[in-house]
Amino acid sequence: MNGIHGGDIYRNRVRLDFSVNVNPLGTPDVMKTALKAALKLCGSYPDMEAEKLKKAVGGMLCVPEEYLLFGNGASELLMAVVHGVRPRRTMIPTPSFYGYEYAAKAADSEIVYFPLKEQTGFLPGEDLLDALTEDVDLLFLANPNNPTGRLPEKAYLCRLLDVCRQNKIVAVLDECFIEFCEEGRSMLSELENYENLVIVRAFTKIFAIPGVRLGYLLCSDPTLLNRIKRQLPEWNLSVFAQAAGSVCGECRDFLGKTAAYVRAERKFLAERFAKMGLRVFPGDANFLLVCSRKNLYEELLRQEILIRDCENYRGLSKGFYRIAVKSGQDNEALIKAMEQI
Amino acid sequence: MNGIHGGDIYRNRVRLDFSVNVNPLGTPDVMKTALKAALKLCGSYPDMEAEKLKKAVGGMLCVPEEYLLFGNGASELLMAVVHGVRPRRTMIPTPSFYGYEYAAKAADSEIVYFPLKEQTGFLPGEDLLDALTEDVDLLFLANPNNPTGRLPEKAYLCRLLDVCRQNKIVAVLDECFIEFCEEGRSMLSELENYENLVIVRAFTKIFAIPGVRLGYLLCSDPTLLNRIKRQLPEWNLSVFAQAAGSVCGECRDFLGKTAAYVRAERKFLAERFAKMGLRVFPGDANFLLVCSRKNLYEELLRQEILIRDCENYRGLSKGFYRIAVKSGQDNEALIKAMEQI
Repeated sequence: MNGIHGGDIYRNRVRLDFSVNVNPLGTPDVMKTALKAALKLCGSYPDMEAEKLKKAVGGMLCVPEEYLLFGNGASELLMAVVHGVRPRRTMIPTPSFYGYEYAAKAADSEIVYFPLKEQTGFLPGEDLLDALTEDVDLLFLANPNNPTGRLPEKAYLCRLLDVCRQNKIVAVLDECFIEFCEEGRSMLSELENYENLVIVRAFTKIFAIPGVRLGYLLCSDPTLLNRIKRQLPEWNLSVFAQAAGSVCGECRDFLGKTAAYVRAERKFLAERFAKMGLRVFPGDANFLLVCSRKNLYEELLRQEILIRDCENYRGLSKGFYRIAVKSGQDNEALIKAMEQI
Repeated sequence: MNGIHGGDIYRNRVRLDFSVNVNPLGTPDVMKTALKAALKLCGSYPDMEAEKLKKAVGGMLCVPEEYLLFGNGASELLMAVVHGVRPRRTMIPTPSFYGYEYAAKAADSEIVYFPLKEQTGFLPGEDLLDALTEDVDLLFLANPNNPTGRLPEKAYLCRLLDVCRQNKIVAVLDECFIEFCEEGRSMLSELENYENLVIVRAFTKIFAIPGVRLGYLLCSDPTLLNRIKRQLPEWNLSVFAQAAGSVCGECRDFLGKTAAYVRAERKFLAERFAKMGLRVFPGDANFLLVCSRKNLYEELLRQEILIRDCENYRGLSKGFYRIAVKSGQDNEALIKAMEQI
C-alpha cells in the first residue's frame, strides 16, 4: 500500500522507515522528560493562552510573541490559513507537499498548479513570478521544498514576496524542514518587511515528535493573524504538545548538531546513490529526491524498508522516490539493501 | 479573571476547581497505562486511519465504524461541522456552550439565538420547534444542555429531528456529558432514522482527560460525514489520543460506577445548595446551575475555589453559577467554604 503520504507503518511490515523525514538524532532528552512529566497534566484542560510555549518559542526564534500562533501540527495551521484567507484562487507550485492541496480544497478554493521544471531541479524561477498575478489570492511555497529539499535563494524569495504584495497575495512559506538546512536560509527575518508573509513551521520533524502534534505559524500583520486564529479550534494544543514545545529553548546545541549530522549523512547517501547510477536531485534538507529505472519502492519493501514512492506526486511520475536521511547505521543498511536490488 | 470558559487554573490561584466538569473518579487506570505506553510512540506519525481507535469506539457504542469521525477534542469537530455544512443561518438555543457560537462565527454564518425560558429550567419546548423553519440550515443543541445539565425528553428530540428533516436542517446534538446521566437518554439509537442527525461526543469529560484532546462524531449519512471529514486536518489525532481511546472497551464498569457516583453526589450538592437558600435548577449531569444573590465566584475564589461564573453566558445574567459535581470529599469542602460566605 502506497498512500498520499509516507509513514504508513500501520499497514506495512517495516523494519526501517525512510518514507518519513524526522530527525535521525531522535527527540532531545529534555523533551522526552517534559513529555513524560505531562502525563500528570492529562486531567487538566490545556492552557488556552499557551503562555509558557509562546514564551519559549518566541525566545528561541527571537521574534515577538504576538507574531506567533500554535497548531495541532502544521496541518491544522494550513487548514486555518485557507479558511482565514478564503482564497478564490490558490497557487501551488508542483511537485510539492500534498497538504496544500488538501487544505485549499477544504475551502473550495480554485487551485492553480504551477509546474516546476525538472531541468532546474524543480527550483522555482522567473516564470513563477510572472504567474503570480492579481487573480491569485494565496500562494503555498515550501522553503525548502518537499520532496526535493531544495532551497530557493533568499533574494529570489524577497522578489517573490514583493510580487505577492503588489498583487495582494498572501504568501505561505512552509519552513517545516528549514532547521535541517544550513543556517541563515529562513525567511523569518523578513516577517516585518512583508505583512503578507505567513511562515509555517513544526516541531514534528526537527524534534522527531510527529506523534505529539505541534506546529506554529508566524505573521507580522495582526489582522491577518487574527483571521487565521479564529479558525483554530479552542484548546487545540494538548498538554503534551505544550510541554514538549515549552522546553525548546534548551535544545540549541541539539539543533546545531542535527544540521551538521544531516549534512554529512546526506552527502554520504547522495554519493552512494550516484555511484549506483541513480539520478540524485540536489537538496539541502534531511531527505533526497532520486530517480531510478528500478522499482525501488517494491524492491525495498520486500526487504521491509519503506521509502516514499513519488509517482503519485502531482508533477512527478513513475521512477521518482524520496528517501530520508537517517542515522549512519540506518543509511548504511539502506545502501546495502539497495546494492542487492 | 473570569473568561468565556471555566478551568483557567493557569491564571488563577486555585485549590479546588469546580469550574470544569470532568469525571470525579478521575481517569481509569487502563487509560493511564495506555497513555504512559504511548510515550514510546511519539517518534512515529499517528495512524491516519485510526484503525484501533475506530474499532474500540465502534464496539463500545455498538455503532458501525463507518458512522464515526474522530477529532482533536469535540471543539475541532464543531469547527469541522460548520465548515462542512456551510450554514447561511445557524440556530443556537441559549444559554448554552459558547463553542457553538465560536464555530459558527468561524464560518461567518448568521447566528439566530433562540432564548430558552428560565421558567421551564431552560428546557427547549414547542416554541423552538416553531422557530426551526426553512431559513435555518444548522442547529446546535446540547443533550444534556450546558450549563443546566438538563436532558430534553427523547420523544421531544425525535419531533425536533423530524422538523429539522422537513426543513433540511442539520441537527448537531452535543452529547459530551451524556455518560454522566441516567442510561438510555442518548440519541445514538436514532442515528439510522435521521440522516440529518450529527452527534458529537468527547473523551474529555467522562474519562477525565481534557489535556489529551479526543472527541468523536457520529452520523449515518456518508455524504454529510464526508463533507465534515474533509474539514479535519490530516494527522489530527496524537498518538496519546489514539492510545487512550483504544482502551475504552475495557472501561464499561467504570462508566456504570461513574453514573451512580455522580447521581448520589449531585443529589447531595443540590440538597445542600437548596438548604443554603440557593435556587438550584434541576439537572441530570455532573454539574449544577444555581442562582444566588451573593457573589459566589469572588467569595469562593478568595478561598481558592474556582466555580464558573455564568454572567457572561448569552441568555443568563448576574447571579448564575455553574458548579461541578466532584468527589465526596471535594463537595464537602465546597459546602463548608460556602457556609462561610
